[in-house]
Amino acid sequence: MRPIDWQHGRVRFIDQTRLPLEEVYAETDKVEVLADAIRKLRIRGAPALGITAAFGVVLGANAFSGSNRDEFLHHIENVSSLIGSTRPTAVNLFWALRRMHSVVNRNPSRGVGEMQNDLLNEALAIQREEIETCRMIGLHGSGIIPDGCSILTHCNAGALATGDYGTALSALVQAHESGKKIRVYVNETRPLFQGARLTTWELLQCGIDVVLITDSTAAFVMQQGKIDVVIVGADRIVANGDVANKIGTYNVAVLADRHKVPFYVAAPSSTIDASLLSGKEIPIEERDSREVVELFGHRIAPPGVAVYAPAFDVTPYELVGGIITEYGILRPPYHASIKALVSGHRISSGNI
Amino acid sequence: MRPIDWQHGRVRFIDQTRLPLEEVYAETDKVEVLADAIRKLRIRGAPALGITAAFGVVLGANAFSGSNRDEFLHHIENVSSLIGSTRPTAVNLFWALRRMHSVVNRNPSRGVGEMQNDLLNEALAIQREEIETCRMIGLHGSGIIPDGCSILTHCNAGALATGDYGTALSALVQAHESGKKIRVYVNETRPLFQGARLTTWELLQCGIDVVLITDSTAAFVMQQGKIDVVIVGADRIVANGDVANKIGTYNVAVLADRHKVPFYVAAPSSTIDASLLSGKEIPIEERDSREVVELFGHRIAPPGVAVYAPAFDVTPYELVGGIITEYGILRPPYHASIKALVSGHRISSGNI
Repeated sequence: MRPIDWQHGRVRFIDQTRLPLEEVYAETDKVEVLADAIRKLRIRGAPALGITAAFGVVLGANAFSGSNRDEFLHHIENVSSLIGSTRPTAVNLFWALRRMHSVVNRNPSRGVGEMQNDLLNEALAIQREEIETCRMIGLHGSGIIPDGCSILTHCNAGALATGDYGTALSALVQAHESGKKIRVYVNETRPLFQGARLTTWELLQCGIDVVLITDSTAAFVMQQGKIDVVIVGADRIVANGDVANKIGTYNVAVLADRHKVPFYVAAPSSTIDASLLSGKEIPIEERDSREVVELFGHRIAPPGVAVYAPAFDVTPYELVGGIITEYGILRPPYHASIKALVSGHRISSGNI
Repeated sequence: MRPIDWQHGRVRFIDQTRLPLEEVYAETDKVEVLADAIRKLRIRGAPALGITAAFGVVLGANAFSGSNRDEFLHHIENVSSLIGSTRPTAVNLFWALRRMHSVVNRNPSRGVGEMQNDLLNEALAIQREEIETCRMIGLHGSGIIPDGCSILTHCNAGALATGDYGTALSALVQAHESGKKIRVYVNETRPLFQGARLTTWELLQCGIDVVLITDSTAAFVMQQGKIDVVIVGADRIVANGDVANKIGTYNVAVLADRHKVPFYVAAPSSTIDASLLSGKEIPIEERDSREVVELFGHRIAPPGVAVYAPAFDVTPYELVGGIITEYGILRPPYHASIKALVSGHRISSGNI
């Protein structure tokens, strides 16, 4: 299932805010509409944001009608700034923007029309590679899931969050498809219920045994010995192995540690930002308090109450048992295994 | 603020499901209506349930119009069964029912009218004692809250959950009223948002600095060093010090342990059930899955998804730094301190 795709000069995407009750697709040829869709979480998930950013640059580039190369490059800068301003934490978005930039900067003799075409080809390549990457993550990840195993996951690291397959869910789906009997406990993932809305929907579609729980029920479920392994996605992984992911991930990691449950992160290497040495340097997006206190137009807290609503938290490397990438599973010490991966595979590091 | 009271032969209570946007009071002279209000969580909180159960027996007793003592006793049995069937975990409810029973069994020469009067007096005594108990819990509890301190609490252990003052919140309110500057982080408490709806409402009314967070944000907030102490209520405390409380409490206790934050439970001695040796013996109520997946008539998960929705969890004694009662703060080892309290103060043990 491809949550975002390129069709006849337009970007087509599933509106994730309408799931699971409605499967609605939107189409646009305007980068402003796409940027707004990212901001409103109609499109979400770190790897999907990378693909979306790339397609966004293409839409922006195609809206340029002149032939002056410098003006075009300046225009692309503006388009990138717009896309880069939507969400600060997922590094894939910046990684994709940087890749798109290098296309236009590569050859000073290319005309505007050629560069527009180069950008589209690069965006499609990013999409293709991300999909293959997720397939490989699932292949490596399914190896750590024994038959008869119960898995806990948080938020949505499924096909919806990527180009296809997903990251954490790619591992689960491939384990299931290989004939292993598994049960997946899904944290609902407040405040936006990505677990309840999206992850359960994806897993049920695959015929996987799913149990939905509220986030803080995870502790009780682990205490009862019902969880064998935790797998989550990531929005950014830095040089020492610290992992930024959906708020509540660190909570799950602490619980897993106490109950001696292995805790895995599944993410493409494009999620690695080796330019940051520790998770403390990762900018953490804060969301509008209304996402916590307003549910379907109904207010659940008194007017005027202060709300702290970070979108992500940081799980320190010492709680991470392994990082499942398309190249295999990174193990501690991460400063070494991440360094080896980054240098061996020329993974980009640093923000745009 | 008295959430439940006796007025002119009727029970008057604030409908907690309407808070914080509406302050609606209901009145009834029918035990069936009161039992339904307990089941639907219009009235909730372990100590408040004890008072409600007592008033419920009075309403049931007053509905008896005959004069035959045996028939009356049989009728009271039925009334108690009805009330006892509403919610299985909070021991205060059964404790109050047993106290009411002992009134009618005390003196075989009392007529029906006299027993009806005795029951009302006993219920009013229970209410009076519970209110004084909460005042004392607050007095002892405020001692562990230093000036300038930040406290995390989960669910609602406030006046609404008791006869007045609350348990955990009694400590906070008395610390605030004594001039200490405090900030309270409140877990919203899924699935029913008692923290968001009730605790923030009570604390704001007292002029206390409140920050609302989603439950799994607690981990990130503790990681940032923002929490100095955790105080929660309890629904049942057993002989070894294990504590049943709102689902998510165990999660908070694990987080507090990891971040070296003291974790306190505040509860009246009527919450202690020394007849159970360990938390494993506490019956854990499971709630309707709709409380998780339906919000204000809007479904957040796909049709047919399985849901696990326990209302409570059990925090093992080794995570509990102290139990704040009306007699003072119990410290580990709890099997000894609880035994001393129970024998010294003749606290009832065991279910009805």
